[in-house]
Amino acid sequence: MSLPDGHELHRRVAELLPIPRSLTGDGVRRTLAVLGGWCEGLAVHEVPTGTPVFDWEVPQEWNLRRATLTAPDGTVVADTDTTPLAVVGYSEPVRAELSLEQLRPRLHSLPDLPAAVPYRTSYYSRSWGFCLPHDVLQGLPEGTYRVSIDTTLQPGHLTYGEIVIPGTTEEVGLVSAHTCHPAMANDNASGMVVATALAAHLRTLSPRLTWHVLLAPGTIGALVWLAANPDLVPSVRAGVVLAGVGDAGPVTVKRTRRGGTLIDRALDVVLRDRAAPSAVVPFSPWGYDERQYGSPGFDLPVSLLMRTPHGSYPQYHTSADDLGFVHPSSLRDSLEVLVDTVAAVEGNATYRNTSPYGEPQLGRRGLYPTMGGRAARTAQLAMLWVLNLSDGDHDLLAIAERSGLAMADVRAAADALAATDLLEQVYPSQTRRPT
Amino acid sequence: MSLPDGHELHRRVAELLPIPRSLTGDGVRRTLAVLGGWCEGLAVHEVPTGTPVFDWEVPQEWNLRRATLTAPDGTVVADTDTTPLAVVGYSEPVRAELSLEQLRPRLHSLPDLPAAVPYRTSYYSRSWGFCLPHDVLQGLPEGTYRVSIDTTLQPGHLTYGEIVIPGTTEEVGLVSAHTCHPAMANDNASGMVVATALAAHLRTLSPRLTWHVLLAPGTIGALVWLAANPDLVPSVRAGVVLAGVGDAGPVTVKRTRRGGTLIDRALDVVLRDRAAPSAVVPFSPWGYDERQYGSPGFDLPVSLLMRTPHGSYPQYHTSADDLGFVHPSSLRDSLEVLVDTVAAVEGNATYRNTSPYGEPQLGRRGLYPTMGGRAARTAQLAMLWVLNLSDGDHDLLAIAERSGLAMADVRAAADALAATDLLEQVYPSQTRRPT
Amino acid sequence: MSLPDGHELHRRVAELLPIPRSLTGDGVRRTLAVLGGWCEGLAVHEVPTGTPVFDWEVPQEWNLRRATLTAPDGTVVADTDTTPLAVVGYSEPVRAELSLEQLRPRLHSLPDLPAAVPYRTSYYSRSWGFCLPHDVLQGLPEGTYRVSIDTTLQPGHLTYGEIVIPGTTEEVGLVSAHTCHPAMANDNASGMVVATALAAHLRTLSPRLTWHVLLAPGTIGALVWLAANPDLVPSVRAGVVLAGVGDAGPVTVKRTRRGGTLIDRALDVVLRDRAAPSAVVPFSPWGYDERQYGSPGFDLPVSLLMRTPHGSYPQYHTSADDLGFVHPSSLRDSLEVLVDTVAAVEGNATYRNTSPYGEPQLGRRGLYPTMGGRAARTAQLAMLWVLNLSDGDHDLLAIAERSGLAMADVRAAADALAATDLLEQVYPSQTRRPT
Repeated sequence: MSLPDGHELHRRVAELLPIPRSLTGDGVRRTLAVLGGWCEGLAVHEVPTGTPVFDWEVPQEWNLRRATLTAPDGTVVADTDTTPLAVVGYSEPVRAELSLEQLRPRLHSLPDLPAAVPYRTSYYSRSWGFCLPHDVLQGLPEGTYRVSIDTTLQPGHLTYGEIVIPGTTEEVGLVSAHTCHPAMANDNASGMVVATALAAHLRTLSPRLTWHVLLAPGTIGALVWLAANPDLVPSVRAGVVLAGVGDAGPVTVKRTRRGGTLIDRALDVVLRDRAAPSAVVPFSPWGYDERQYGSPGFDLPVSLLMRTPHGSYPQYHTSADDLGFVHPSSLRDSLEVLVDTVAAVEGNATYRNTSPYGEPQLGRRGLYPTMGGRAARTAQLAMLWVLNLSDGDHDLLAIAERSGLAMADVRAAADALAATDLLEQVYPSQTRRPT
Repeated sequence: MSLPDGHELHRRVAELLPIPRSLTGDGVRRTLAVLGGWCEGLAVHEVPTGTPVFDWEVPQEWNLRRATLTAPDGTVVADTDTTPLAVVGYSEPVRAELSLEQLRPRLHSLPDLPAAVPYRTSYYSRSWGFCLPHDVLQGLPEGTYRVSIDTTLQPGHLTYGEIVIPGTTEEVGLVSAHTCHPAMANDNASGMVVATALAAHLRTLSPRLTWHVLLAPGTIGALVWLAANPDLVPSVRAGVVLAGVGDAGPVTVKRTRRGGTLIDRALDVVLRDRAAPSAVVPFSPWGYDERQYGSPGFDLPVSLLMRTPHGSYPQYHTSADDLGFVHPSSLRDSLEVLVDTVAAVEGNATYRNTSPYGEPQLGRRGLYPTMGGRAARTAQLAMLWVLNLSDGDHDLLAIAERSGLAMADVRAAADALAATDLLEQVYPSQTRRPT
Repeated sequence: MSLPDGHELHRRVAELLPIPRSLTGDGVRRTLAVLGGWCEGLAVHEVPTGTPVFDWEVPQEWNLRRATLTAPDGTVVADTDTTPLAVVGYSEPVRAELSLEQLRPRLHSLPDLPAAVPYRTSYYSRSWGFCLPHDVLQGLPEGTYRVSIDTTLQPGHLTYGEIVIPGTTEEVGLVSAHTCHPAMANDNASGMVVATALAAHLRTLSPRLTWHVLLAPGTIGALVWLAANPDLVPSVRAGVVLAGVGDAGPVTVKRTRRGGTLIDRALDVVLRDRAAPSAVVPFSPWGYDERQYGSPGFDLPVSLLMRTPHGSYPQYHTSADDLGFVHPSSLRDSLEVLVDTVAAVEGNATYRNTSPYGEPQLGRRGLYPTMGGRAARTAQLAMLWVLNLSDGDHDLLAIAERSGLAMADVRAAADALAATDLLEQVYPSQTRRPT
């Protein structure tokens, strides 16, 4: 496999960063166009405003030309040409002159991070406002300010992207990254970049699962996809949301709502095998789109992969989540964890030992290692474990879990044994045999 | 709710203390008369001697007028007018003169606590004896002693009290405190005082469960109630025995025999939410009447709430378990834990999210907090948890357990959601809908 | 019970040590003749070469007269008259002259333990070789060496021993020790000695289970027994493999493949009750014949009892596993653990409390301790536990586990209660009542 290196992934984050994204609008369309250049097969879907989506409906489309706030002396103190964060997302169009007093409730800043611009939106109630550094806000003189918010908020579409990699079965794998956050590197340019790199990798495989890589706005985007795919939803066997996968923290995974599902187990084994620091947090209905996939009506086995958990670093949802906050090595590491996890999900299978009465004679079949050393001992031990636990009840992940052996070694042992007469695959009743 | 304060509870312990109680007799009747003054509705039951009760039968009734032991020089060295503990409980009537040598096997003291009088009984085999401080015993001169035990032991009744607080369902809650121990403050004047205060509190509620607060002698009293109520016993959903709830130790609860029942879970969550030191001990068939409720033929979900575990403090079952050993703050704290536990038991329910596909739009229903701050964030998080886990399988206690949120916050969130169209209550098949 | 003391057990190890054992051959027959002298009833079975055994077949019989390697100067540098380890097990007959260069691939030594002779075999592919101390190997001069391997490798038999102790039921207990390792004290003269001492002890009992004590070569021997006894195999309720039970390490037991079986639970309780250091290791398909008993087609509840785990001490599979490496006290301790474990397996039973509604009145039945003190309190507590948990679902081991009381105390309490009307034994449907 040839994956983009960390510097290329970082370069891509930089390319996405300036595009002004939101829940809807042309920024999302430009983003998807860029993403489509990194992985073939990205389909763009447009869903009209007003489309009912479970308890919600698709909101109006918002587009931003430019928003500025001009001080009494003519200085422009907030300008979306400098950063798209300068205006509250989904601000309605405004052209007005206001005193500082009148303006204050519309101005958002971060007293604890006085040089950074906060990220604010008002998707579902009409409003407007500006975001600016607390240092700037503190220095604003009294007087009359000119507000110019040149936006459109009107019927249009919600836009999302999807890359489908067909598998040999109808089981579905899901990778999901939100596309709605503007001008922040970790949240979630990193997620979009890693998701498309993973999609490109999946296209080099002949996977068992049919993988759907979803690039959609948060909450409503995930719900739109769920509503649009009632036939696929019950077939989702494993999924992962990618959000904030580029910062310096260790990989952190969130349990699925049910826990103990294929993706939970695959991530656990992969992170154990990699032996780098990592963390697991329990499921909670607070976070990214795993909240929607894990709502009780769906209860899908979808995890969240991140690095430092959202909300627990000061740069979160501010302009300080910039290119310096994400690292080539972290982006690459997140991608590798995902590639290994896909391999564990794809490579998992259940076998039955066809010679279950005692250990079969490996030597007769040329399965005894001809060389000594640690690798040969591991290979032999892995074969003994696979033979011992291949009783139809244990899949290869269970064997990796119980033996402590790496999933790759267990998979290799199963391949070696399956090439003789000693193993036959067991297809669970809900799985279509590959054709 | 208005509960008696700790000083009032302590005053009540002091009022009960001097009454000479035993398994049967007028001391129990006087005790129940006092308890009935603290909570309306206390019914007194009299069960005749000889009534068969499972493997037992109701013993003869014992009444004590006075017992004295007089030394050769005329000094009275043991006298039930000083403490009812001075005579072995259920001593048969005796009038005799005996040498110290003859008397010794009848005299009980505590070498390790030489100033205290021990508590001894001989309920089920006829006997007699005196209890006195080891210091006094050591100083007794040789010579002839006069024994005067003026008791009656004859057919009569076993007396117990019961307060029933009707609920909207036929499910039963049980609170049980033993009434048979004389002259000891923690064991069990404290239990009787807290049980009646809890009963008075229950009368201010319109509870879901029908609560039975039982004030009965240990072992045989609990068995009498179980034998008398064969229709109620299978409906006991949660119960707690109160014994030794006034000393300075932390609250300690004992698991029910089965463990993981409603009362175990409610106590766990309440004690976790209170965040004060507390302890849990496993079930064992050694203790108070939870032994009887938890015998294999009943296997009722009845816990034991105490503070320092019985038998593990030197004052246990001695005259040193006096008014100074129990504390107003401890009595009040035990009562509050019970009030909260009743609230958790009563407030527990299972709901179904009627909009389970994704998160419903809370804003549209006015459920988004209008104020910021920690309380608002907790309220919002609690709503998300309740929505996420209200799938018919999780009750509110399960949601409190898994989320880490306080039961009161979870209950409040369920109330807010149930007031909209988003939640509907699920009635388990064995539960009658409230009418 | 009268068991051989540690010195007698050590003397027996010394007696077995010099006999040249292998997978087959007269050394095994001589070993079984000696073992038969320590326990009556040892039957010797001979299985012809070529007999199919699941995926294997019985190999040719190997007998060693003498093997020597003579240096150019006439010095004999390896000689099976000095140690049977000097020749690779199952070496084919050879008479040859070879240069040191030609010889080297045939010479085995231990650089890390330069004074010891390693143990090597080549059972299933024809080969030959010598084992010698690394110090000797290093000092060998160039020149022509004379190889004399006077062995026979031809159709014959595989020989194993079995002691059957009939029980009152058809349930089977299995004790298994491998007989094939030559000239090593811990591995496995110790196992054979302890197994026969345990068999002799079992003959003094009237056991419930029918015990089979198997003394057979590793792997193929266990498989031969399994193949020969298709009717017994499904009845194996508890088993233990003995290997390396004489060294100074603590007792170590290996979980059965399934875990939580009768033998796992009995060993756990016995080791807990003995309160000496001990260890538990998880099941793995690497070790001794528990690998075969625990293959998926059999999945028998067979544990492995050892002291220091095989492979984790430097003397393992070398001539340094000698008489000094095994200790009288360790041999005796291993035997005692097994005797206690057999008692726990045999003594385990499930009862039903016939008076389950409340605690029955023990005093009336003379079951209240007449003496005070710790033993009496333990006896009383054990009776309360047995009564409380004898609901048909808990066996005595479960009561010992949950109460923390010693299995012997629990068993004694059940005996006392069963002698009254308070307990009746529950026979699981798969168990034949004793006749």
